Parts: sequence; C-alpha cells; structure tokens
Amino acid sequence: MTETGRLETFADGVFAIAITLLVLGIRTPSPSDDLGKALLDQWPEFVAYIVSFLTIGIMWVQHHRLFTIIRRSNATFAMINVIFLMFVAFVPFPTVVLAQRLGSGVDAVGATLLYGATMVGIALMFNAIWRYASAWDGHLLERQSVEDRRAVARGYRYGVPIYVLITLAAFVNPILSLVGFAAFAAYWALPISGASRES
Amino acid sequence: MTETGRLETFADGVFAIAITLLVLGIRTPSPSDDLGKALLDQWPEFVAYIVSFLTIGIMWVQHHRLFTIIRRSNATFAMINVIFLMFVAFVPFPTVVLAQRLGSGVDAVGATLLYGATMVGIALMFNAIWRYASAWDGHLLERQSVEDRRAVARGYRYGVPIYVLITLAAFVNPILSLVGFAAFAAYWALPISGASRES
Amino acid sequence: MTETGRLETFADGVFAIAITLLVLGIRTPSPSDDLGKALLDQWPEFVAYIVSFLTIGIMWVQHHRLFTIIRRSNATFAMINVIFLMFVAFVPFPTVVLAQRLGSGVDAVGATLLYGATMVGIALMFNAIWRYASAWDGHLLERQSVEDRRAVARGYRYGVPIYVLITLAAFVNPILSLVGFAAFAAYWALPISGASRES
Amino acid sequence: MTETGRLETFADGVFAIAITLLVLGIRTPSPSDDLGKALLDQWPEFVAYIVSFLTIGIMWVQHHRLFTIIRRSNATFAMINVIFLMFVAFVPFPTVVLAQRLGSGVDAVGATLLYGATMVGIALMFNAIWRYASAWDGHLLERQSVEDRRAVARGYRYGVPIYVLITLAAFVNPILSLVGFAAFAAYWALPISGASRES
Repeated sequence: MTETGRLETFADGVFAIAITLLVLGIRTPSPSDDLGKALLDQWPEFVAYIVSFLTIGIMWVQHHRLFTIIRRSNATFAMINVIFLMFVAFVPFPTVVLAQRLGSGVDAVGATLLYGATMVGIALMFNAIWRYASAWDGHLLERQSVEDRRAVARGYRYGVPIYVLITLAAFVNPILSLVGFAAFAAYWALPISGASRES
Repeated sequence: MTETGRLETFADGVFAIAITLLVLGIRTPSPSDDLGKALLDQWPEFVAYIVSFLTIGIMWVQHHRLFTIIRRSNATFAMINVIFLMFVAFVPFPTVVLAQRLGSGVDAVGATLLYGATMVGIALMFNAIWRYASAWDGHLLERQSVEDRRAVARGYRYGVPIYVLITLAAFVNPILSLVGFAAFAAYWALPISGASRES
Repeated sequence: MTETGRLETFADGVFAIAITLLVLGIRTPSPSDDLGKALLDQWPEFVAYIVSFLTIGIMWVQHHRLFTIIRRSNATFAMINVIFLMFVAFVPFPTVVLAQRLGSGVDAVGATLLYGATMVGIALMFNAIWRYASAWDGHLLERQSVEDRRAVARGYRYGVPIYVLITLAAFVNPILSLVGFAAFAAYWALPISGASRES
Repeated sequence: MTETGRLETFADGVFAIAITLLVLGIRTPSPSDDLGKALLDQWPEFVAYIVSFLTIGIMWVQHHRLFTIIRRSNATFAMINVIFLMFVAFVPFPTVVLAQRLGSGVDAVGATLLYGATMVGIALMFNAIWRYASAWDGHLLERQSVEDRRAVARGYRYGVPIYVLITLAAFVNPILSLVGFAAFAAYWALPISGASRES
C-alpha cells in the first residue's frame, strides 16, 4: 500500500495538460482575413473550448473530491486511474472533431455522439475507480467517511445515465447536447448539488 | 472543506503549460531561407512571446500570493478557479493572432482588443476569486490576515480599469498596448508595488 | 544528498505530458469527409494511442513504486533519471510513426522495431536507475526494504528480454507485437504479477 | 516572505513541459517513404533532441540543487525566476531551427549562434537568481550553507564564459558546438564536477 500523493500529482498533471491543450484546437485565422468575420465564423471552436474546459474542470474537481476519502493505492488501482485518464486525455480529439463538424455541418450528430461517448466513458471509469476503492474498503478508504461515501455513491448513480441522455439529445440537435454538457458541469459546482456543502 | 493543495497544484500546472505552449506560436522559418532576415521579419512573434510570458508569469505570482492567505476550498470555489484558468489557458490563442496581425498589418487593432479582452477577463476572474473567498470569510481565509487582505483588495481595485485603459491604447497604437502590458507586469514585480515588501 | 521529492515531481510531469501529448498524434479527419468511415480508417491511430497510453501508464506506476524504496538522490542519479525520461518523452514519436505505417502498410515492421527499441531503451534505463540506487546502497535506499528490493530485482530481470521478444514478434506480424505490449502493460497491473500484493 | 514550494512546482512544470515538447520538433516521415532512409536523413533532429534534452535536464538538476539552499521567496525573486524560465521554455524553438539548418546546410552557423545565445541567456539568468538570493542573504537562503554557497558561486563563475566559448566553436563547426553542449551537460552530472559529492 502506498500513499495516493503521486497518483494525485500525476492525475492533476494529465488533467491540467489535457485542459490546456484544448486551446490548440482553435485554428488561427489567416493573417490576411478580416479578423472579426473570421472569429465569428469560428464560433463552434470557442463554444467547444468552453464546454470541454468546464467539463474537464468539473471532472478534476470531482476526482479531487473523491481522493479526499481515498487514502491508499496499489498497482491495480493506479492502473484503473490510468485508464480513466486515458479517456480524459482523449477529450481534445472529440472536441476538435465536434467543433469542425458544427462548422461544416457534415455529420455533426455523429461528432456529438463521439464526444458524448467519451464523456460516458469517463463517467463509467469514475464508477470503476469508486467501486474498486470501496471493494478494498478499509484498505483504500479513509476510516471516518461513511457519510461521504453515501454522498459519493448517490452522485455516481446518476452520472452515466445522465451523460447518455445528454448525448442522445444530439439526435434532436447537437447544440442541445452541448448546452446539456455545460449545464451538467455547472450543476456540480452549485451548492444545490450538495458537493460544496458536504466537501 | 478541503485544503487548497491540489487546487494550487492544478493551477500551477495550467499556468506552466499555457506559458510553455507560447513557444509553439513562433513559426519555424523555412530551412532554405536566410535565417537572419527571417528572424528579423518575425519580430512581432518574439515580442508577443515575451509580453505574454511576463504577463502569465506575473499572474502566476499573484495567484500564488493570493493563496498564501486562502487556506480552504470547496466545489464552487474550485470551479471559479477553473473559469479563471479557462482565460489563462486561452492566452496562447490571442498571442498568436496578435503576433500575426502585427506582422501582416491587417486588423492589428482588433487583434490587440482581443488580446486585451482576455487580460480584462483574467483580471475580472481574479476579483471573482477574491470576492468569493472574502464572502466565505473565516471559512476560506487564513485567520491572521487582515493586513494582507487590505493589501490584496487595494491591488485588485485597479487591476480591471488599468487593463481596460491599456487595451484601449490600441486605438492610438497596438505597440503602445503591448508596452503597457509588459510594463504593468513588470510593475507588479517591483518593490514599489508593495507586493514584495508585504509578501 | 537531497530528498527525491522534486525528482518525482519532475518525472511525474514528464510522464503526464508525454502521455497526454499522445492525443496530438491522432489526426483530425477532414471536416467534409464522412465521419464514421474516416474514424474506421484511422483505427491504427486509436490502437497505437491505447497501447502507448497503457505502456507509459504502467511505466509511471513502476517508477512510482520504485521510488517508494528510493529515498535520496544526487546529481548523477538525477541525470540517470533524465536519460530515462528522454526515452519516455520520445514515445509519442514512434507511436505516430507506427500508427501511420500500420495504415499505409509501408515498412510497418520497421516502425514496430523502432517502437520496440524505444521500449527496450526504457527497460534498460529502469535497470540503470535500479543498479545505481542499489550500488549506493544504504545511501539512496530506504533501510527496511530487503524484501522489496528482492521483488524489484526479480521483476527487472525479465523486463528487457521480454520487451526484446515482443519487439521481434513484429517479424511475424506487427499487430502481434502491439498486442504483446498491451498485454505486458496489463500484466504489471494484475495482482498475479505480485506488484499489487507487495506494494 | 513565502516558502519556495510553489515556485519549485511551477519551475518543475515549465522544465518538464519544455523538455517533453522537444519531441514535437521531430517531423514524422511521410507514411509512404522508406522508413530507414527517412530516419537516417533526419539525424540532425535526433541529435538536437538528445542535446537539448540533456541540457534542459541538467539545468533542471542545477535549479533543483540551487533551491536546496534557497528557502524563501518574494514577488521580485519569483519574477526573476519567471524570466529565467522564459529562456528555458524558449529552447524548443532554437532546437528545431538548429536541427533543420544542420539538415539543409543553410545558415547552420547562424542557427548554432541562436541556440548558443539561448544557453548563454539561461546561464546569465542562473547568475541573476543566485545574486538576488545572495543579496537578500539571511532572508532567502538557508542559514547553515556557507560551504554550499561557496560551491555554487564557484560553479557559476565559469558557466557563462564556457557557454560563450562552446557557442563560438560554431565558427569552426556547428557539430563541435553541439558536442560541446552535450559534454558540458554530462560534466555537471559527473562526480568530478563536485556536484554529486557535495549535494
């Protein structure tokens, strides 16, 4: 058993890099084009930047929060976290694809499904992290955390189905999905989500 | 309530990555061109690199300093910091746009406004961080920091209007704005700003 | 003699960045192409992303684990770690080359050898780190770690030859090598490897 | 006065990112070209990668070592470190330029001077960091470090002139400079440099 310090440092690094690489997905308009018009035409890239930034941000906050009650690690648990991070680090790719498809109008629904599938993958891995940590109960978790544990379990029960629903909203309109992803990220940061109150 | 350790690690990561990605905005001159001439022609890219590096640098110093008196966090506060970092991580984009527009001469004023708007956004988010932390007073802040708190509040009163003024100087000359951004960054590092003396 | 804290932070940073840069190797399909078809055609890029992510991930886990029994550092030891990280940070290059060659079918075996050679290099440097730390025994290592030391030595005895074998499997089929690299990464995370039990 | 913890974390981040971005300077050979021939033609990119990696690596080791005797910071000192990091983060640019010029043969001497000037800049900033920390003596430094202080001062006396000499060797042959930079990096890691013995 080892402390979770380096696992958290590593995860923070991947979160921080993935979130900062998002800006590379915004294309620089050609230096001879009218700047205002070019930026307006690129609106999907800015919207996608904001939505993905908020989403990775709130996922970092949740991961952070989860590790206030997980205190120990082992090789298997570290590798589950690596797979979780594999989905997080992947986010810049569907973000760029989605932004470009909203711009071109070709397969925008498919791009939203790709984006949503990545989010569902992250939510599933969050559950995997939590289940493994709970199963090794008394080993990986903080002792005095029965209350916190229930709050976490409650939150995770809804993560996957909600991400699936938001993703499927793309069949109505991809923008609806994007708004949904942003709104769900914002929700987690609000006191009504219980996250701030209890943390 | 949780410690601010991981929040600071994450913020440091985003600051460090955004500042280091700036170098990717400097184009490699074609290997068959005269090197000296090519580098001289690229002067706006080097100037923009220096100004943005110093600006992100001093913002990191100020964030660092702020967190010597903020001691606790919660989910909402973490998310406010994520939005702050969304502006910081965005800086490489307006930096490249500004550098290229100073080179081409097309819409250089507009590019400076985009750059300045990003800086104003960062200054506004600094205020948001500070106000939220103050409002939760006694919860998020260090106890013995009345002195420090006044110094912080004093500094923040001028941040937004000064960045707005420097940005508007672009209508006179974009270079004037650039000099202004660099000078303002340098000012914060000087003992006369009160920052070194008090920190 | 200094503590290993900053060495671990630096190594974690390089691991985290190298692993997150892998996503930049996945090309964005042209916005006017059929998305589903384009993504299917890019399968080698996704497979290479997964294999390299898992491999860098498990190497981070192993490095992490190694430093639970290495407690002190010096300039030479730090530089050995820098050379180790030079191989780790190189991984995105052979990953992209391999993905593109599996796609084009030109020199796919050669690309797998380049990829495998990088892995063998990492395994060799792991041995170098361990040997230097053992040689300075009593200086760099934790005292109560005779048990752990034997486990580490046992694991490292097989690392290099196994990576050589997996690499040579490319002469049969490059895909066989890829599966081998993924399987070897997964093996280290399993309890049967002894890694979880003992850590 | 504040602790140097976050300054070191931030510096480690910039070092780690700059060193890991070096791999992006190695071009992926066209997927339809003969792989072996393409890689051989790219030898300057691999050499430049190795030299820059070792150089940034040893500079990180030295920075690390320096901060074992610097214990406190202030805003001005943090900004001096930011300017130091501005040179470190710049290294990927002259590295790519040098690699491409060694390949094309056009202005290879000029590219080596650009590369060397960056190294001289880093060495000068190392002196600036040390002088500022010494001037604030008793404030920024560890108390019991008279011995260490003399060792540091001794090492820094030669850094700038040696980097200037290695740079000027480009007028004889750019490769001679490259070998010089790599050798100087290796020297710092050797016990004979006094670095390992004393640290």
